Amino acid sequence: MSTTSTKPITLYTAGTPNGHQVSIFLEELKAAYPGVDYDAVKINMSINQQKEPWFIKLNPNGRIPTIVDHTRSDFAVFETAAILLYLAQHYDKDHAFWFDAETDPNSYSEMLQWIFFAHGGVGPMQGQAGHFRNAAKEDIPYAKTRYLEETKRLYSVLEIRLKERDWLAGAGRGKYSLADIKTFPWVRVHKFAGIEELDEWPAVKAWVARNLERPLTQLGIKVPQ
Amino acid sequence: MSTTSTKPITLYTAGTPNGHQVSIFLEELKAAYPGVDYDAVKINMSINQQKEPWFIKLNPNGRIPTIVDHTRSDFAVFETAAILLYLAQHYDKDHAFWFDAETDPNSYSEMLQWIFFAHGGVGPMQGQAGHFRNAAKEDIPYAKTRYLEETKRLYSVLEIRLKERDWLAGAGRGKYSLADIKTFPWVRVHKFAGIEELDEWPAVKAWVARNLERPLTQLGIKVPQ
Repeated sequence: MSTTSTKPITLYTAGTPNGHQVSIFLEELKAAYPGVDYDAVKINMSINQQKEPWFIKLNPNGRIPTIVDHTRSDFAVFETAAILLYLAQHYDKDHAFWFDAETDPNSYSEMLQWIFFAHGGVGPMQGQAGHFRNAAKEDIPYAKTRYLEETKRLYSVLEIRLKERDWLAGAGRGKYSLADIKTFPWVRVHKFAGIEELDEWPAVKAWVARNLERPLTQLGIKVPQ
Repeated sequence: MSTTSTKPITLYTAGTPNGHQVSIFLEELKAAYPGVDYDAVKINMSINQQKEPWFIKLNPNGRIPTIVDHTRSDFAVFETAAILLYLAQHYDKDHAFWFDAETDPNSYSEMLQWIFFAHGGVGPMQGQAGHFRNAAKEDIPYAKTRYLEETKRLYSVLEIRLKERDWLAGAGRGKYSLADIKTFPWVRVHKFAGIEELDEWPAVKAWVARNLERPLTQLGIKVPQ
């Protein structure tokens, strides 16, 4: 697949929680900074396009999302959270959506802590819950229960964090940041994992609604069209 | 549990791949920089010490490792990779074990990409392989196969990366960095996940040996005593 992009960044993606993290952030950056723009290229996972040799050269793990930055010698970045931090460093110079490591090291670290919590916890565990509920070829109650309960436990950890604040990182009630962009797209699709309602976690529920009120989040979750 | 630490950093840990990531790095920092030192406090997971209220105040996720930095108003950091990056920022000013984001942004991003690959891939998936092989109360061949095969696939991705280099990130053959410190403790315990030998991935096997030759790695994997 060759792309003749005229925009600075190409995003290879699909309509999944991992893809949406990057498209939400790119929509925010595009609105906040003149000159930031991207092409979204849909990867058809049903025919394993992400495992084709041209894609493995960009991302040896063969997964979406992956970006190529044409303004920086076609530098390729994979792993959702690494993409978010790359885009922040190069395109969010005002720290609108993250924290300056030098001047606000504690908020910066808290943001990373919650990013890693989502990247190693919510994402993989909710992903397994979805697999055993929706995709596995066998009905395995043990695995269904294991991952559903772990996902609920992780939501309870988010509840502890959010019950006295609006956003996951930052002083006071927090500031909307990459930590929220990283985590929200997973919690948004809680039903896919078998969690019908968020009433058990009222602060998480309010935070999901707060994310959904953002117009650029609404644009981001429709990518790729 | 109260600790009366006289050293700058307290590490709450256990003898697991996640714990060892931080103890290896702390041993490296301790040897490289005068003034860096830490107390390792063993958390007894068999009696769920990591779920006790005093620990949840440090880490709402209730898992090891967690650090408290007494030189910075007892700031607490959880999530293994966030701890590594925190320690690098505050205690590895010469960038001996990481890359300067400003002067070497591509190596810095590559390091983050492989850190996130390990944090969201190798760690959780190999962890599930170990669970279904060693701990699950039911014998579930589907789940055993699923996570064993995914762990092997992830090792094959590492093989692609390592076959022309010594370390995961950095120009040329790479530089020993947080990316290796993050990933090695998991691959080291491959047998626990049901992978008896690494012969299928010769570059990974050589990289494991290269890590094991480091004297401070040898110290780090013996923490806590």
